[in-house]
Amino acid sequence: MDINEIVKQVTASVMEKVGASEGKFDSRQTPPAVSGQNAAAYDPSYGQYMDHTVLKPETVKATLKRFCDEAKQYHFASVCVNPANIPYVASQLKGSGVKACAVIGFPFGANTSFIKAAEATDAIKNGAGEVDMVINIGALKDREYDVVYNDILAVVNASHPAAIVKVIIETSALTDEEKVAACTLAKKAGADFVKTSTGYGTGGATLEDVRLMKQVVGDALKVKASTGINDRRICDEFLKAGAVRMGTSKGIKIVKGEVDIKPEDCEKCGKCSAKCPSGIVTITKQAY
Amino acid sequence: MDINEIVKQVTASVMEKVGASEGKFDSRQTPPAVSGQNAAAYDPSYGQYMDHTVLKPETVKATLKRFCDEAKQYHFASVCVNPANIPYVASQLKGSGVKACAVIGFPFGANTSFIKAAEATDAIKNGAGEVDMVINIGALKDREYDVVYNDILAVVNASHPAAIVKVIIETSALTDEEKVAACTLAKKAGADFVKTSTGYGTGGATLEDVRLMKQVVGDALKVKASTGINDRRICDEFLKAGAVRMGTSKGIKIVKGEVDIKPEDCEKCGKCSAKCPSGIVTITKQAY
Repeated sequence: MDINEIVKQVTASVMEKVGASEGKFDSRQTPPAVSGQNAAAYDPSYGQYMDHTVLKPETVKATLKRFCDEAKQYHFASVCVNPANIPYVASQLKGSGVKACAVIGFPFGANTSFIKAAEATDAIKNGAGEVDMVINIGALKDREYDVVYNDILAVVNASHPAAIVKVIIETSALTDEEKVAACTLAKKAGADFVKTSTGYGTGGATLEDVRLMKQVVGDALKVKASTGINDRRICDEFLKAGAVRMGTSKGIKIVKGEVDIKPEDCEKCGKCSAKCPSGIVTITKQAY
Repeated sequence: MDINEIVKQVTASVMEKVGASEGKFDSRQTPPAVSGQNAAAYDPSYGQYMDHTVLKPETVKATLKRFCDEAKQYHFASVCVNPANIPYVASQLKGSGVKACAVIGFPFGANTSFIKAAEATDAIKNGAGEVDMVINIGALKDREYDVVYNDILAVVNASHPAAIVKVIIETSALTDEEKVAACTLAKKAGADFVKTSTGYGTGGATLEDVRLMKQVVGDALKVKASTGINDRRICDEFLKAGAVRMGTSKGIKIVKGEVDIKPEDCEKCGKCSAKCPSGIVTITKQAY
């Protein structure tokens, strides 16, 4: 089936199941302008797109401190961490303009709605200004749209207006129909963002998924791409596809305009000024 | 350093930090006798060791139902699932003697203690009779033993006496010293089991780890081995090493006495009666 037909049919079917009234949100901030695909080397304006992300369970305080220091230096949007680390991260970020972002029901999304809402409340009390929640993927696959919807709504109600809510749909586990249904439910529940991936599924963000998600949520929600946004070139592609937030630990590299070149991709242009990541050419000038 | 010296020194150091008084638990059930390494083909007594485990985030109700039906048929100890699935699983298992087991703070262990305790309370309210919680790994690595201890204690207090508590220490992320410290803290907090792995770390159970964990907790706690317990032969090794519960989705295979043979392990004995998993020999008689 044509993707537009999928969007039309699934959206209608989902909305019928959860009721047709529109969400309670009106205007949203206009996404900031993209700096351009061929931006010069160092471009601090990329900082606004970055959720500086460190979610490994063995993360120690010294690592958290480094991420906070980096986020403040490069004016990132947030530092995204597990809930147990929010008190420390929020204290480190206080007054900086960089938000503490907590993941909720992470990474499986298989907690009860009651606990997801409690997690969000607890994280916000501990200083989180943003929460990234994972949907109930099993319920979505069982087409229990009311369960998925009320799960998202529980977190939205627990979070607004103190914190914005990003809804992780885990694209790598979903069919196109399920992606459309998940985005429709996130929009209906009044979330602020839809987000592609946890980083712990079988795949990360793709440009096709970001375009599809943007098509479904329109201007009502923003899109966050996560997992695999590893350099400026990739970041630019995702910005063009409609994402305005990137979940990555490579934000500094992106601000600095560094680019990954795989040996097979390298055209030996000699234009890169940093150390060649492929180690196969002498670099004389930076490409980005 | 010798492992016995590590156990001695780390135990003393951890107990000094969290106070020397013993936990509030007295006698424990004696682990059931092991059926023997060369048990005959089908042995239903293996059922008692099995936590029939299905944790994938995309798990649908039909799969949960199958796991519950299997657990009842083979008299497994529990069906181990994510918290959102506990209401359904508990209803399926009602009156069967098989417990519903909920994972808590899973798989990263990086939730706040407040939320882990709330998760346990919620899961027990929904019908869980066992909870498997993940420790705060980052805090352990930062040697914040009081944080790790109080985190476990919060879940124990929320769970006892309604449910037993297994403490997942995620061995693959830990040094030997950290494994000893984690087991000491679980013992001190009055948990019922220490458990090796979440299945989402970089490795699963090893015999060395199970022996070390048993050495630290002694008779006060039991040991659960999880991840990689894929057939009868492996199960027998872990029983011998001191584990009395296995976290696996291969429980039926273990009860039936089937065995995985890797091509490089096969001695071409011709004794297996099932289809040869290595595909390299004709099977005439079952080895187990």
